[in-house]
Amino acid sequence: MTERVVLAYSGGLDTSVCIGWIAEETGAEVIAVAVDVGQGGEDLEAIRKRALACGAVEAEVADARDEFADEYCLPAIKANARYMDQYPLVSSLSRPVIAKHLVAAAKKHGATTVAHGCTGKGNDQVRFEVGIASLAPELTCIAPVRDYAMTRDKAIAFAEANSLPIATTKKSPYSIDQNVFGRAVETGFLEDIWNGPIEDVYEYTQDPAVPREADEVVITFRSGVPVALDGRPVTVLQAIEELNRRAGAQGVGRIDMVEDRLVGIKSREIYEAPGAIALITAHAELENVTVERELARYKRQVEQRWAELVYDGLWFSPLKRALDGFVEEANQYVSGDIRMTLHGGRAVVTGRRSDTSLYDFNLATYDSGDTFDQSQAKGFIEIFGLSSKIAAGRDLTQ
Amino acid sequence: MTERVVLAYSGGLDTSVCIGWIAEETGAEVIAVAVDVGQGGEDLEAIRKRALACGAVEAEVADARDEFADEYCLPAIKANARYMDQYPLVSSLSRPVIAKHLVAAAKKHGATTVAHGCTGKGNDQVRFEVGIASLAPELTCIAPVRDYAMTRDKAIAFAEANSLPIATTKKSPYSIDQNVFGRAVETGFLEDIWNGPIEDVYEYTQDPAVPREADEVVITFRSGVPVALDGRPVTVLQAIEELNRRAGAQGVGRIDMVEDRLVGIKSREIYEAPGAIALITAHAELENVTVERELARYKRQVEQRWAELVYDGLWFSPLKRALDGFVEEANQYVSGDIRMTLHGGRAVVTGRRSDTSLYDFNLATYDSGDTFDQSQAKGFIEIFGLSSKIAAGRDLTQ
Amino acid sequence: MTERVVLAYSGGLDTSVCIGWIAEETGAEVIAVAVDVGQGGEDLEAIRKRALACGAVEAEVADARDEFADEYCLPAIKANARYMDQYPLVSSLSRPVIAKHLVAAAKKHGATTVAHGCTGKGNDQVRFEVGIASLAPELTCIAPVRDYAMTRDKAIAFAEANSLPIATTKKSPYSIDQNVFGRAVETGFLEDIWNGPIEDVYEYTQDPAVPREADEVVITFRSGVPVALDGRPVTVLQAIEELNRRAGAQGVGRIDMVEDRLVGIKSREIYEAPGAIALITAHAELENVTVERELARYKRQVEQRWAELVYDGLWFSPLKRALDGFVEEANQYVSGDIRMTLHGGRAVVTGRRSDTSLYDFNLATYDSGDTFDQSQAKGFIEIFGLSSKIAAGRDLTQ
Amino acid sequence: MTERVVLAYSGGLDTSVCIGWIAEETGAEVIAVAVDVGQGGEDLEAIRKRALACGAVEAEVADARDEFADEYCLPAIKANARYMDQYPLVSSLSRPVIAKHLVAAAKKHGATTVAHGCTGKGNDQVRFEVGIASLAPELTCIAPVRDYAMTRDKAIAFAEANSLPIATTKKSPYSIDQNVFGRAVETGFLEDIWNGPIEDVYEYTQDPAVPREADEVVITFRSGVPVALDGRPVTVLQAIEELNRRAGAQGVGRIDMVEDRLVGIKSREIYEAPGAIALITAHAELENVTVERELARYKRQVEQRWAELVYDGLWFSPLKRALDGFVEEANQYVSGDIRMTLHGGRAVVTGRRSDTSLYDFNLATYDSGDTFDQSQAKGFIEIFGLSSKIAAGRDLTQ
Repeated sequence: MTERVVLAYSGGLDTSVCIGWIAEETGAEVIAVAVDVGQGGEDLEAIRKRALACGAVEAEVADARDEFADEYCLPAIKANARYMDQYPLVSSLSRPVIAKHLVAAAKKHGATTVAHGCTGKGNDQVRFEVGIASLAPELTCIAPVRDYAMTRDKAIAFAEANSLPIATTKKSPYSIDQNVFGRAVETGFLEDIWNGPIEDVYEYTQDPAVPREADEVVITFRSGVPVALDGRPVTVLQAIEELNRRAGAQGVGRIDMVEDRLVGIKSREIYEAPGAIALITAHAELENVTVERELARYKRQVEQRWAELVYDGLWFSPLKRALDGFVEEANQYVSGDIRMTLHGGRAVVTGRRSDTSLYDFNLATYDSGDTFDQSQAKGFIEIFGLSSKIAAGRDLTQ
Repeated sequence: MTERVVLAYSGGLDTSVCIGWIAEETGAEVIAVAVDVGQGGEDLEAIRKRALACGAVEAEVADARDEFADEYCLPAIKANARYMDQYPLVSSLSRPVIAKHLVAAAKKHGATTVAHGCTGKGNDQVRFEVGIASLAPELTCIAPVRDYAMTRDKAIAFAEANSLPIATTKKSPYSIDQNVFGRAVETGFLEDIWNGPIEDVYEYTQDPAVPREADEVVITFRSGVPVALDGRPVTVLQAIEELNRRAGAQGVGRIDMVEDRLVGIKSREIYEAPGAIALITAHAELENVTVERELARYKRQVEQRWAELVYDGLWFSPLKRALDGFVEEANQYVSGDIRMTLHGGRAVVTGRRSDTSLYDFNLATYDSGDTFDQSQAKGFIEIFGLSSKIAAGRDLTQ
Repeated sequence: MTERVVLAYSGGLDTSVCIGWIAEETGAEVIAVAVDVGQGGEDLEAIRKRALACGAVEAEVADARDEFADEYCLPAIKANARYMDQYPLVSSLSRPVIAKHLVAAAKKHGATTVAHGCTGKGNDQVRFEVGIASLAPELTCIAPVRDYAMTRDKAIAFAEANSLPIATTKKSPYSIDQNVFGRAVETGFLEDIWNGPIEDVYEYTQDPAVPREADEVVITFRSGVPVALDGRPVTVLQAIEELNRRAGAQGVGRIDMVEDRLVGIKSREIYEAPGAIALITAHAELENVTVERELARYKRQVEQRWAELVYDGLWFSPLKRALDGFVEEANQYVSGDIRMTLHGGRAVVTGRRSDTSLYDFNLATYDSGDTFDQSQAKGFIEIFGLSSKIAAGRDLTQ
Repeated sequence: MTERVVLAYSGGLDTSVCIGWIAEETGAEVIAVAVDVGQGGEDLEAIRKRALACGAVEAEVADARDEFADEYCLPAIKANARYMDQYPLVSSLSRPVIAKHLVAAAKKHGATTVAHGCTGKGNDQVRFEVGIASLAPELTCIAPVRDYAMTRDKAIAFAEANSLPIATTKKSPYSIDQNVFGRAVETGFLEDIWNGPIEDVYEYTQDPAVPREADEVVITFRSGVPVALDGRPVTVLQAIEELNRRAGAQGVGRIDMVEDRLVGIKSREIYEAPGAIALITAHAELENVTVERELARYKRQVEQRWAELVYDGLWFSPLKRALDGFVEEANQYVSGDIRMTLHGGRAVVTGRRSDTSLYDFNLATYDSGDTFDQSQAKGFIEIFGLSSKIAAGRDLTQ
């Protein structure tokens, strides 16, 4: 029986060419799988038909938008996940859900190999291959661009030679990956890190410097899950989409940073993630109100490790799973409303209220009604500082 | 010989009353010490004279602005220190330098006790008393407001009864602490955490929502120290002051948060720290360019602990000292220029250049000239993901 | 109605005197509660009667041995919990279970206050009072020894004056706390930290230096729980008790250390915990076999924090609860047998076998049958070391 | 000019064959370099001559024993370094010092390549190659066993065909690496992890089960450095060597564990490190006496990361260097004497004394003379537990 290869298919030139290329290189039948994680663009059915026209023996498309929002973006919100304190893991989150659909297709169609279009110097190859190895250790992975040196020029030549139904016009100057949680842009002139980005680079966000009316939103969370906007119930997907629109219209969520890739190099990245940044900002402040101090302090470390693991492609790893347990537990009481002003590139919390608040007005106030017993402070300070004081007594005499 | 008490003196009503109050309560002579950490306001000599007029046997004033910037603010910049990821430790940084001057005065004047004006429910009492205990374990601390229940009303009555040369008008509705690194505001109506702040609360920053021209600045660092602005050499103090003006004029550095106090309660705080936020933002991005990945990842944890220790009043503790060694080492190569746009409440990095950069264009580029050997990726991915893959093989069969 | 106080009652002189003392000091009725956590010694019914004879209006005894083993010792085993890498938290574990019973009794009998016999310089006062505050924030705590300065001499005088049915002979030179998980000893001559302990100090363990036959045991775990010894099913309590006997007979589990107390001082402690040390040693090695590397590395940090929290009296805190979730998840596959030699003060693992093992003979062997693909190593090393190599290239030229 | 390769030469069959093998494979001249890190065995001069007889164009030997002890073992002692809480990094420590000598030889002799005898599935290949890349990024590394599939059988055939002056008898059943800090053994029958080790496996240690007289030693440290044994001044090398003899004679320092290799697999390892374990045990207890609590707690995490980095071959990495700064600072006051009994496989601390001790008898004692102010405890407990108590009040009502 002929070997079968499942290909992660986007509908673009590179993966369209991969269909025939893989067939030539390996003699295998190619099954194209396209997964909708909210990247927008073409109709899924058009993509499916193009795959068949390019030679795929089967083509499948999956609408994974709600699955992506509920099972991948939501844990990131609960973990306030920002790699290097900034990047909300946009592409890092979509790779595992795509890997899951590729593995399911491979099992369904009896494929032994999974192919993807990544290069050999990025993070996504690791996320795909480690993810797939963790879901189905028996599958093999190939990456034609990396493994068969399939360059852009060769791809165009192949497409033209084989009359593939795909445009071979000059590539956009930007290398882009996008989904509902955000958008990543790399490009030639930004590889000089002294150059600033230009407006042309952005799509999810308007220029924050343009004067406009502010927008105010109230986001309601229940146990860390965004469940309503301005009082209207929403799914997680809807919350992200609506805030992409509203926060994006105010220029919220632009990031420009030099980033440490898993493969050991530094790269310059531009991101836009208006909904993600608005939701994480609101969630983090609601945690400030509802999570006990020591738990909150420890959670910051867990969040950093969680973001690093997901960035590094270890979504399906045992440690990621155990950290999820911690994050879930910590979100138990993260319920309430956050009022936020979206304006001028900033998402600013202006109010919070919660039935599970740990903020106690009577303990905090300096007005009458204060119930804090200040007489306890002296004993606290003495014993809290004692080990430091004893050490100082030693150090000062040495 | 009469006992002597050194009092941390601000020149305001509370500490002016403390001079006589302490004398009455303890029978001791009071020495007033005022330390200038860039809080602005009255002339130091006027403050010194008022202390004497209020009954101090001695009064000293110290201009500690450069010392504060160089030895307290600068380590915070090197540590990108932001408590709970936000608050740049404004008051937490000034308490130890004031404590140092109080201890020096106590030694000079033969005092056995140090007095400060803090209440019994805040963090500053801990910072003063643990700091003093670490510098001079033999000194005793008192806090009249906390220990002798000196309320505002009693203070006014005392001032009037003793004709002290100090205004006893109704207190500002805001409780404020400020220095060159920033400004903290607490107030009655903000104790309802659903209420948003009003413009009236702010002094160091202009309303970011008002349209105005953007400002662009290039900040030069050498080993983590800001040494020039737009090419002009500056001291750390000058860098903070100039950026307070320029970033403050653009509304940069406002923070509104619910915060975990050391004394176990949550409180609502408004901060403005335009210079601090601009400098830390620039410094952090220069680290992204110049610090190796594993060092950078570990440093984030160290930074969090550093900020917690300083917030918690443990500036002079052995752990803080050891973390300083780590932070210092990590800053060795943090040299270069950061170009930043200050506008609309945001300080946005748009360019970075450095002779000690670890960003390697030839490794990062997707253009010709790429020197990254992509063939290594396959072996890397296989071994990097191996422990996770083996575990998956086990878990999937259980 | 008369106030009621629940007293943590041991049956010894101090707490017997406390019954009348508290009544005199507060006018309240005293309810004595004794909790059996495997400390051995007197019959519970005798203790109950003595409490009544000493003036308690009610006296309750509870056999909490299985509860203690299952809900307090077992989580410590799963966390390989050893404070400062050594002390398996013996007393720290019993305080929360006793607190739970005290709170239950207070609710049952309508008491508003809980009393305990701790001094003001140890850890146990914190563990009781923070534990009780977390279970029933409305209850008040008192500690007669600390709060009413009830010294040993005063206690003897009170007992004699009131003809209490309790011996008032000279106290043992040792201050001891013990339960089924171990035994703690402090004493006068050991307060000189240059003095070594003498055999007289020990009760749970034989002298390891005496020659004797070794004992071999196979401990079976299922998801981290010890479920069989030498193939015989056991409860957790039985596992601890049997290993206390067998490992204790071989001198296993003695600890002599200088320890950092929560109250800021260092103290010298002698512990014996033969069963605890044998179980934790076996459990940790089974984790080496069954837990994936990154999870194992992170778990070590979690274990340290877990032990510190429990030592510091924060058993019922939100962070402890969230860490429990992590530890539980990490123990899911910790199943299998550990063979261990108990001899000469050492519990040495000599064999391990597990159906959930991650040790793969075919990957590990250097013999034929090796399935490890060594060709991947070169790519792995190059990329794994790349960030370090790039930094070295920079550093060497500076 | 002919290319030159520097070969890490041990004098054994494998690396003797490598000399000719590399010459054949690459056409390069081979320079053999042997480094004495206390592995014992043959005379260095005999090894040097054998290298030349096997075809090396140059042969160098270096006595690096003191350098190894002072610059590699000592930092490990200061860091109490034990990978997975057990393994004192024996081989992990020697690789970087050997790498340093290989790089020096390469520079001296104008070589462009360094060769080593490691396989492709162990940690040592990573330690050599990442170490060399960090010291001299321009050098290339080769590993004939891995890269040219040089098996044992092929090596014997090559030696016999070329009449090399080296025995080609059947290999020992054990795979061994040893140096002054310890000895590592892997072997066929131990690859079944249910099998226990036999006495035949050990060389540095006597059977701990044999009855013998105990040995007592007093180890003196100054700022973390062992400087005297029983009052006699020693170098670090002498301290390790003498304790290898004395602790080894008592069976101290045997370790049998399943270990997580960097290359993603678990392996079974037997170690003996009598001197290392005795020194680390003594050093850790002296830290308990002289290091402040919060510094000590944090240092445990640093120690774990330090050990992981060194195990993972990142000795020369920026993070390792920054952690060294922390460890160095933390050892500043680790001075004093530790008395230790070596017996029956155990190194047990029985006494400690130090001029820089933080143990304060007067604070710790329960006897008269107690200076601890117990009245402070109540305030401390209330505020220390407040955040947990407030959270409990919330949680109990949800």
